[in-house]
Amino acid sequence: MAESKLKIIPLGGLEQIGMNITAFEYEDSIIVVDCGLSFPEDDMLGIDLVIPDITYLRENIEKVKGFFITHGHEDHIGAIPYVLKEINVPIYATKLTVGIIEHKLREHDLMRTVKRKIVKYGQHINLGCFRVEFIKTNHSIQDAAALAIYSPAGVVIHTGDFKVDYTPVFGDAIDLQRLGEIGKKGVLALMCDSTNAERAGFTMSEKTVGKVLDTIFTDHKNKRIIVSTFASNVDRVQQIINCAYNHGRKVVIEGRSMVNIISTATELGYIHIPEHTLIDIEQLKDYPDELTVLITTGSQGESMAALSRMASGMHRKVTIKPNDLIVLSSSPIPGNEKAVTKIINELSIKGADVIFQDVHVSGHACIEDIKLIYSLVHPKYAIPIHGEYKHLKAQAKIAEELGVSKENIILLSSGDVLELDENSAKVTGRVHVGDVMVDGLGVGDVGNIVLRDRQHLAEEGIIIVVLTLESGSGMVIAGPDIVSRGFVYVRGSESLMDEARHILNGTMDNCMNKHITDWGRIKTEIKDALGDFVWKEMKRRPMIIPIIMEV
Amino acid sequence: MAESKLKIIPLGGLEQIGMNITAFEYEDSIIVVDCGLSFPEDDMLGIDLVIPDITYLRENIEKVKGFFITHGHEDHIGAIPYVLKEINVPIYATKLTVGIIEHKLREHDLMRTVKRKIVKYGQHINLGCFRVEFIKTNHSIQDAAALAIYSPAGVVIHTGDFKVDYTPVFGDAIDLQRLGEIGKKGVLALMCDSTNAERAGFTMSEKTVGKVLDTIFTDHKNKRIIVSTFASNVDRVQQIINCAYNHGRKVVIEGRSMVNIISTATELGYIHIPEHTLIDIEQLKDYPDELTVLITTGSQGESMAALSRMASGMHRKVTIKPNDLIVLSSSPIPGNEKAVTKIINELSIKGADVIFQDVHVSGHACIEDIKLIYSLVHPKYAIPIHGEYKHLKAQAKIAEELGVSKENIILLSSGDVLELDENSAKVTGRVHVGDVMVDGLGVGDVGNIVLRDRQHLAEEGIIIVVLTLESGSGMVIAGPDIVSRGFVYVRGSESLMDEARHILNGTMDNCMNKHITDWGRIKTEIKDALGDFVWKEMKRRPMIIPIIMEV
Repeated sequence: MAESKLKIIPLGGLEQIGMNITAFEYEDSIIVVDCGLSFPEDDMLGIDLVIPDITYLRENIEKVKGFFITHGHEDHIGAIPYVLKEINVPIYATKLTVGIIEHKLREHDLMRTVKRKIVKYGQHINLGCFRVEFIKTNHSIQDAAALAIYSPAGVVIHTGDFKVDYTPVFGDAIDLQRLGEIGKKGVLALMCDSTNAERAGFTMSEKTVGKVLDTIFTDHKNKRIIVSTFASNVDRVQQIINCAYNHGRKVVIEGRSMVNIISTATELGYIHIPEHTLIDIEQLKDYPDELTVLITTGSQGESMAALSRMASGMHRKVTIKPNDLIVLSSSPIPGNEKAVTKIINELSIKGADVIFQDVHVSGHACIEDIKLIYSLVHPKYAIPIHGEYKHLKAQAKIAEELGVSKENIILLSSGDVLELDENSAKVTGRVHVGDVMVDGLGVGDVGNIVLRDRQHLAEEGIIIVVLTLESGSGMVIAGPDIVSRGFVYVRGSESLMDEARHILNGTMDNCMNKHITDWGRIKTEIKDALGDFVWKEMKRRPMIIPIIMEV
Repeated sequence: MAESKLKIIPLGGLEQIGMNITAFEYEDSIIVVDCGLSFPEDDMLGIDLVIPDITYLRENIEKVKGFFITHGHEDHIGAIPYVLKEINVPIYATKLTVGIIEHKLREHDLMRTVKRKIVKYGQHINLGCFRVEFIKTNHSIQDAAALAIYSPAGVVIHTGDFKVDYTPVFGDAIDLQRLGEIGKKGVLALMCDSTNAERAGFTMSEKTVGKVLDTIFTDHKNKRIIVSTFASNVDRVQQIINCAYNHGRKVVIEGRSMVNIISTATELGYIHIPEHTLIDIEQLKDYPDELTVLITTGSQGESMAALSRMASGMHRKVTIKPNDLIVLSSSPIPGNEKAVTKIINELSIKGADVIFQDVHVSGHACIEDIKLIYSLVHPKYAIPIHGEYKHLKAQAKIAEELGVSKENIILLSSGDVLELDENSAKVTGRVHVGDVMVDGLGVGDVGNIVLRDRQHLAEEGIIIVVLTLESGSGMVIAGPDIVSRGFVYVRGSESLMDEARHILNGTMDNCMNKHITDWGRIKTEIKDALGDFVWKEMKRRPMIIPIIMEV
């Protein structure tokens, strides 16, 4: 009998950014790495977030042994409350990651339902046919891990999102020795972060940002300073606080998600805030501007975040003044450029100075770092992950340069079933995958038809035509009445609406004369007549909804 | 009696990119520089384009003498068909610019209504109190002009959009001598392009792109090459064609706007296409891939443009193949980054190679170029134009460095009335300005209320409640019926809708019992009851429209 192969099945994350979730299957065991969400694309109108379709896990629920989470970013943990409600197996992650997950579980009232296990670096977890080892890495959030996944078919190294930081702000550098050690023994496949696979050179240490911040603080001694960054970048917040402390400034932390993460990090010992440094936002007025710093969310231009509200003058506690210096310690995530620019302009118009370049380093490995990992791990197969297709392709090129043979470099799509062992690696099938849209409390109840309607309503508005027919005779005894929304402003369009009503009266007369009594047919006649009229008059195509009642 | 002052009134273009239009007024004369449109912001749902509110010109129509157009880009000419229909005065522009404007006028059937005058560089136009001289500049479209506007209060230099190109592909370099000559005699104010005022150094010559293209063609001798760029960048298209010709390839031009502009440019002699080089798209199949080049629109990821359709497999004539090289000879305009990335990924997934960096130069002056212009013109007042606020502010900094005193640097907003002469320059008032939204044939009939409704419909969908009351008794004799769109997919939501109907029956019973007969009141009760129910069940707030009929 042939030996079994290892199956690797990405259930999300490979056609878009976010929604990272990958199943590893060997015989009767499945383990899952990460369980992320993605944020809605522009055409997903009204959708709050998107989670992966886990039909495959549902159908193989008895095989699923556990979830391993590499770090605490939304695109790796965000779907946990939705998925673990159904697939109730333990979650394994490092301490801070578990802390952030628990915050989520509490919001969804799942603390008693979902089991969490805190794992230390170097620890091995045995689950079914698998053994999983957590390996220290660096990233733009603390406590990130790579996973060494030991299966009977061989070892797979999954890097998660990572960078190589020799001088991290908190904790140790990435455990390159251990990666080398495992690599020396032989690694079947490397699944490596591709996000920065198009960027030359090495990624700078997080610590370099501290020096930049210090220079900025030194150069702006007379200003109030507002620094905006990612809520989850605790090391960045630590460096801003250190800087504030060294310059004798008090610190306010503003923005719900940042307050949440910093309180979790403080509780668990991942950030150290000198006594008497933090003040409440209400106390701001008790200190001169030049002795305060605000640390806020909103560095991506998110319209509801603290910085946006300050920029647009909608923040209840903070008013931007010409004596403010705003520092965006971030760079825009693709798609957010315009929103970020809008905020910079708004802040500038209010007279504030804005620094938005070079106060940030990436959390992802650049080309030379990726080469380092390949050289340590020396895998038989290269399976680039985390990134858009162009990034995966860029990493494929790097792998090839480093001697991985072309046929051993595998670019997967979500849903591909990759079967591999020492002898071969082949995509042998597909499983069902997809986006499940979450809107309010509804999970999956908004599908493509609803989205198409929303798009139509958004672009053209709606015209509702109501009429009441007499039962039996089919005579129109009330209406047709016309109500529109999102079409034209009503005042000034009366004559248009009058004419439309006139046309509909004609349509109904016509139906009566032709003895058309089928409601479907009448509705079609109404839609056609009104649609043609509006197109002719205005070159628009609003949604037209005829509603017929009978008494 | 005090002498009159010159008024400069930007009627658009200073809060957003696009919609450039500025009035110059002296006593009984007004001239207008440019007449552009802007493209809708993300929250302007369903809007096709945005034109300036010209109430001020309308109210002073007898003063308006003419429009001067600096170049043929949409943000400088796009509103002409709408504005000149009302303010019927002659348009003055260079030859290619007039050619492009005429294409627009033809589409709007205004060729006989709107008068055009072709102006040569160096020519002076006398209109009312003004004299306007056209001065040669360079830009990413040919035939761009700066304007020297002579008024009794002094000379204003308006650069339009420009760059300094010592080695342009077609025609002459910017007329620096003339700028110096006018500057030497004394210039009251300089209105200078700020687009690249944050970018260090000099803007590269358009010709450098030709060299890059040649290297790309040399390195990819065995591939079909598809080059995408801005339709209006005729010099870029010229260089691609030259390159194709030199490498023995046939050229197909694809995309409606590019075909239009290239045919205008060919007619007017602004592009020279070697004989037998252009072929029709239908002839592509008659040539081997490696002997063809397609030049297409869509380099900004516009969803309806040729390149997008090719990338998504929707183009009727061109199928992307692994043997294709796609060159994006452009860089994404802010806000388009994600759309461009999407196309790059789609093309990559189809196996094509994509080059998207460093095959483009900007059409706008960088910091050192701006310094050059200030040094030649040496204005008393600096009035930065063309750019977002942060760009204007960046140019203000440059002007200050070059010795313009801080109080003589004026950052205007659209609608400001700047009065100036040798003695002073002050904003003395405001005129009404704003966005007029164009949707289909409707100009200005979609306002903020309609947009707010569209936003609501887009995010939450609509629930329509219809019922028929008996006249006199006020009894419900039909309904309440519920129809929804963009809310939830109907199948699977029957029980929700049943429950909603149940609640509405209760609401109506309640109204009857309390003898509530006022329709407004009944509608409010329906909205509240249904709204509360849906919020409680789903945490959503669809638009709710109650419609009551009476028989």
